[in-house]
Amino acid sequence: QIFDAVVESEKQQQTNNQAWLGLKTFWQGKSLLITAGPTYENIDPVRFIGNRSSGKMGFAIAETAAKAGAKVTLIAGPVNLATPQNVKRIDVRSAEQMFDAVQQHYASVDVFISAAAVADFRVADMAQQKIKKQSDSDEMTLKLIKNPDIVAWVAQQVDKPFVVGFAAETQNVIEYAKDKLVRKNLDMICANQVGDNLGFESNENELVLITAQHQQTNPLSSKSQQALDLLSFIAKNEAIR
Amino acid sequence: QIFDAVVESEKQQQTNNQAWLGLKTFWQGKSLLITAGPTYENIDPVRFIGNRSSGKMGFAIAETAAKAGAKVTLIAGPVNLATPQNVKRIDVRSAEQMFDAVQQHYASVDVFISAAAVADFRVADMAQQKIKKQSDSDEMTLKLIKNPDIVAWVAQQVDKPFVVGFAAETQNVIEYAKDKLVRKNLDMICANQVGDNLGFESNENELVLITAQHQQTNPLSSKSQQALDLLSFIAKNEAIR
Repeated sequence: QIFDAVVESEKQQQTNNQAWLGLKTFWQGKSLLITAGPTYENIDPVRFIGNRSSGKMGFAIAETAAKAGAKVTLIAGPVNLATPQNVKRIDVRSAEQMFDAVQQHYASVDVFISAAAVADFRVADMAQQKIKKQSDSDEMTLKLIKNPDIVAWVAQQVDKPFVVGFAAETQNVIEYAKDKLVRKNLDMICANQVGDNLGFESNENELVLITAQHQQTNPLSSKSQQALDLLSFIAKNEAIR
Repeated sequence: QIFDAVVESEKQQQTNNQAWLGLKTFWQGKSLLITAGPTYENIDPVRFIGNRSSGKMGFAIAETAAKAGAKVTLIAGPVNLATPQNVKRIDVRSAEQMFDAVQQHYASVDVFISAAAVADFRVADMAQQKIKKQSDSDEMTLKLIKNPDIVAWVAQQVDKPFVVGFAAETQNVIEYAKDKLVRKNLDMICANQVGDNLGFESNENELVLITAQHQQTNPLSSKSQQALDLLSFIAKNEAIR
């Protein structure tokens, strides 16, 4: 069994070495824009609506792409992660700030990967002062309005790059991802089952990579292995302008 | 000026040395329960309502009290902080989980310091699956209900310890803190002006310590200096059962 494990590990190493060669051939000199992490939508100066995205997947893609020779710009929501080497990082907090940063950068890149978990909704009327609890009311209603759909917006532009989205779902993830690929006019989508220590807040991930023609399931592995496989999938399958 | 600074720094050092002596005399063998950090209230498996509390103030108090010889139990919300030496840490996420942990521990301690920023409200109906954005609706309403008031609950118990609350406000903080001290039957309250790099998410703080008889303003300093001053204030001013 130990021998099997060694052989398995050597096989993985050989596969990775070949993948790295392909990766460098393709990505050298290409420019890549990535969003990562959650967005936080303020309710008042102290409270906000957030989500459990750690940003680790997007940061792993940024790190791997930079190692492969790509020019990488990383737009990061509020996360506790170090900036990978040779990556230009732009920190944002809300979906609207992320949208502004993406609008400034999308037109000059070859590939856009939207790995951030952008909040679908923001608070309709952000309070300028901390909202006080009224002792006589036991309920409170928060009115939310829709945020801009960043990845769909980029995919609608005439000068759009190759657009990669993520679908993080707790159920029916592949079905939902395929629908999202078509509905939002994406070039590729990464289906990501979340919950039960998968996806959010964990160091491992299981992704299904989907384009109009191809589908590839990458079994549970580290997020840096997933990043390598994802960037190789783009390199193998897609001709980018 | 350099000489003045040295004298000033030596003065501070002497004051701190004296404070440490008083601190150890008082706190040696005492037991202290502290809550720290935010609470996160789930909207669904991926989204939550949070707040900007970093937990640094509560962790600084726990560290200083343990150094002074107190037996410290620290109930921490979701924070990125290392556990101080000789501190027993209990990790929680929601206000209800924090309340459970406090109910289990309050009766066996001499002092309870509620430094956590407990969410006033939680989501009325937590969704079991990720809530989907409906493309035909541009608005969403979140119904919230009141969380238990942990510090007020402890202060109402017959076997209550010495109870210290915090009032973190963006405006009228002292006035609000004094009202909260009386209204919630607290023994002491720490008024904490937040916003503009003060309080939340920063390493420095400015606290006004208030009891029924005394009020002491501690100018802007590190959170560990504030912890020292706060624990000294308790030691100087209060006879604890």
